Amino acid sequence: MPAVRVFVTLKPSLLDSAGRTVAGSLQHLGFDEVQDARIGKVIHLQMETVDEARVQEMCKKLLANTVIEDFQYEVIG
Amino acid sequence: MPAVRVFVTLKPSLLDSAGRTVAGSLQHLGFDEVQDARIGKVIHLQMETVDEARVQEMCKKLLANTVIEDFQYEVIG
Repeated sequence: MPAVRVFVTLKPSLLDSAGRTVAGSLQHLGFDEVQDARIGKVIHLQMETVDEARVQEMCKKLLANTVIEDFQYEVIG
Repeated sequence: MPAVRVFVTLKPSLLDSAGRTVAGSLQHLGFDEVQDARIGKVIHLQMETVDEARVQEMCKKLLANTVIEDFQYEVIG
């Protein structure tokens, strides 16, 4: 059965405070090589059939808030 | 600068109620081809250098709760 992986991330111009906290915590744990972290969602959809135009519609209608978030997707299998 | 993308998802045996809700909402909107949805986190790390053993350590120590979550990562650039 085909699947789609959708990534939803805050637009780069927006402050990602959760990501900032994660980066700080990693540095505090000794992982000094970490410069920055940004956190997003990944939504794994099991689909009967994949129509990319419909996937984009799902992202715009429900999965992402396109005012503040970007989305990307990849079709698997 | 290299980056690492870490995916953190609930273990497949656990009920993902948020994912279930998203799948139901998509079906309700007419996207009947959606069978199931599972939601996870994606953490994009900007790094000075990438040492995969250290990335795994970050995942186990902070990014994932390995009792209930699986993690995967990919090195970018």
